[in-house]
Amino acid sequence: MLIVKKFGGSSVANKERIENVARRVAEDYKNGNKVVVVLSAMGDTTDELLEKAYEINPDAPKREIDMLLACGEQTSVALMAMALSKMGLPAISLNAFQVAMHTTSKYGNARFKRIDSERITNELESGKIVIVTGFQGVNKYDDITTLGRGGSDTTAVALAAALRADACEIYTDVEGVYTADPRMVDKAHKMKEISYDEMLELATLGAKVLHNRSVELAKKYGVQLVVRSSLTEAEGTIVKEVTKVEGMLVSGVAVDKEAVRIALVGVENKPGIAFKIFDLLAKHNVNVDVILQSIGRDDTKDISFTVDQTQAKEAMALLRENQERLTIQKIEEEVNVAKLSVVGAGMQTHAGVAAKMFEALYDVGVNIRMIATSEIRITVLIDLEDVQVATKAVHAKFLED
Amino acid sequence: MLIVKKFGGSSVANKERIENVARRVAEDYKNGNKVVVVLSAMGDTTDELLEKAYEINPDAPKREIDMLLACGEQTSVALMAMALSKMGLPAISLNAFQVAMHTTSKYGNARFKRIDSERITNELESGKIVIVTGFQGVNKYDDITTLGRGGSDTTAVALAAALRADACEIYTDVEGVYTADPRMVDKAHKMKEISYDEMLELATLGAKVLHNRSVELAKKYGVQLVVRSSLTEAEGTIVKEVTKVEGMLVSGVAVDKEAVRIALVGVENKPGIAFKIFDLLAKHNVNVDVILQSIGRDDTKDISFTVDQTQAKEAMALLRENQERLTIQKIEEEVNVAKLSVVGAGMQTHAGVAAKMFEALYDVGVNIRMIATSEIRITVLIDLEDVQVATKAVHAKFLED
Repeated sequence: MLIVKKFGGSSVANKERIENVARRVAEDYKNGNKVVVVLSAMGDTTDELLEKAYEINPDAPKREIDMLLACGEQTSVALMAMALSKMGLPAISLNAFQVAMHTTSKYGNARFKRIDSERITNELESGKIVIVTGFQGVNKYDDITTLGRGGSDTTAVALAAALRADACEIYTDVEGVYTADPRMVDKAHKMKEISYDEMLELATLGAKVLHNRSVELAKKYGVQLVVRSSLTEAEGTIVKEVTKVEGMLVSGVAVDKEAVRIALVGVENKPGIAFKIFDLLAKHNVNVDVILQSIGRDDTKDISFTVDQTQAKEAMALLRENQERLTIQKIEEEVNVAKLSVVGAGMQTHAGVAAKMFEALYDVGVNIRMIATSEIRITVLIDLEDVQVATKAVHAKFLED
Repeated sequence: MLIVKKFGGSSVANKERIENVARRVAEDYKNGNKVVVVLSAMGDTTDELLEKAYEINPDAPKREIDMLLACGEQTSVALMAMALSKMGLPAISLNAFQVAMHTTSKYGNARFKRIDSERITNELESGKIVIVTGFQGVNKYDDITTLGRGGSDTTAVALAAALRADACEIYTDVEGVYTADPRMVDKAHKMKEISYDEMLELATLGAKVLHNRSVELAKKYGVQLVVRSSLTEAEGTIVKEVTKVEGMLVSGVAVDKEAVRIALVGVENKPGIAFKIFDLLAKHNVNVDVILQSIGRDDTKDISFTVDQTQAKEAMALLRENQERLTIQKIEEEVNVAKLSVVGAGMQTHAGVAAKMFEALYDVGVNIRMIATSEIRITVLIDLEDVQVATKAVHAKFLED
């Protein structure tokens, strides 16, 4: 069996953890498997390197940032190869140049275009464990690129696809994907499996286990993922195409506390204005979620929506610059809100999920500010202070007997 | 003018020093020159990385060590490009893959085979300052190699040769090449110029300013070097083909305290034995210097020679293993010795230099243990405790009026 195993930064943060990972890798290898290991930079290395960079130049060129950051993973893979070698196992580390991981040109946020499998395949054929740098690639200028946060997950999935691996295991510091954040809901439990689409909704909504792009890529190439802990032997959660839709209506409850609500008050009520507003934001890559439009006083309407905290400043600036042209009387920003979502492939074929969710919130007196739905999720915007009680109530309604 | 400037690890050890180097580079660039900068790893980075490696695996594979160490220079060049960019100057960092610095395969001690100049030339043509990682290369397996200590000097010279640069400046923490170690001889003064051959003898003898291989390469390709300080504007020392032989008999006095004397007592006095001994050492790359052979008691002879401290252990082990076959009665090791040398292209055509040196030592009562000479140097082995007084006396004799 050909297995791709990805370990995040906290799993290789020091000598002991590197040795721990080496032991897990060795086990698979000794059982006769071909093993490819993808690693992130050790612990907080990436943040430390960024700090050094910004100290020298707060506006450092992205190309040079990527050149710098790539050292993080290169350090991890070399040390891992040494640890495996210490155990008497043949291992070889490879960086993005050596594998030839071709990406688009965009520094700091590149996408894979093509991965050459020749070098890795040759090393595997000669009996070696292959350790590959996550998070990085090479663009058409022969320059180093990085994939953005969560990039190492994407590297693992892309390699699994390119090598037609039999398994792709994503090791993290939790034991899998949970029905809710266990720190918030004590009855939250680990899912045995989850579909790509559900995982995508959960990742977008802040479940923070797998990066969105890696799940998209896994779905596109049909790479079955396992999310599991690098610290325990627990089984983890399988992410794959079809899960038993018959079973549960709702797979999980996700919370996103990073949402900011922007309200545009008194927008002229004529065709095309809403389009112009969201087109402006889209053109600047501001992602908008949970949109609500309501009739205001006079001949105006009010438009509200949420954006991620990281994009709120840019969104506000854009709107203020264009306030007159967009006929907006007043722009308001509200940060004390949170998004609460239920996700489940089952709800596609079942009516009444929304009603059940609203009932759960009503029972504990939580006010719903806005609502948005997709085929497999329902999201409500609530006050930040209600998050804990709301999450518990919704989880109890759908996921506890 | 096309200038290659090399800065060592201490010159880029922190933010302030990086900015200092950036300012010097900027000056040349603003004066209309094309500038290529070669950098070592920051401060003690290389040693710190090695420490991490040996903690995980004291016998770490050399290939992986090189993979790890290469991160040191890559960090330096990226940060330097950022510092220059902060000053509004266009700069680009390149690693060994990107330049295509082809080396032999030997990890930890590779040699340059060929350097592609295309990428660098293109970047220079487009107006950029090019920052290149010193110390590293890529071998035929597409693996990262390193050149061994002092490798960044060699990178600078190799690049200057490949690019047909007009100047190659080696920046260090001293102001140039001195007639003796200023910490030992207070009247030591900076040389204005020195020939490649003299520099080679001085480098070998522990002057520690330029690495031997870089001087050999400079001589081979006729690259004129300037050794100067990164901290002051002082003029430095020029290293070139012919210096005014008419002038001084002796250019400098060098001391090597790292010498170890090995004495082989009672070796059988028959043809071929000395050959076998030194052949054995040569085959294991142990460099032998200052050889003395003398008639011993009975029908035996004694053979003494010096080796560098770093090779003493290996040399002793080799000799002990083969003691019987080589008919050696007793092997002795002595560490409290030092090599004192005078170097000067002038002595080729002048007799009496040796006599003058011995006179200087005799005047201060220093005992000479062994003597070795080449065309442009005379080396004596003395007791370690005599080093200071001997160096001062010899320097005064030849280099002070």
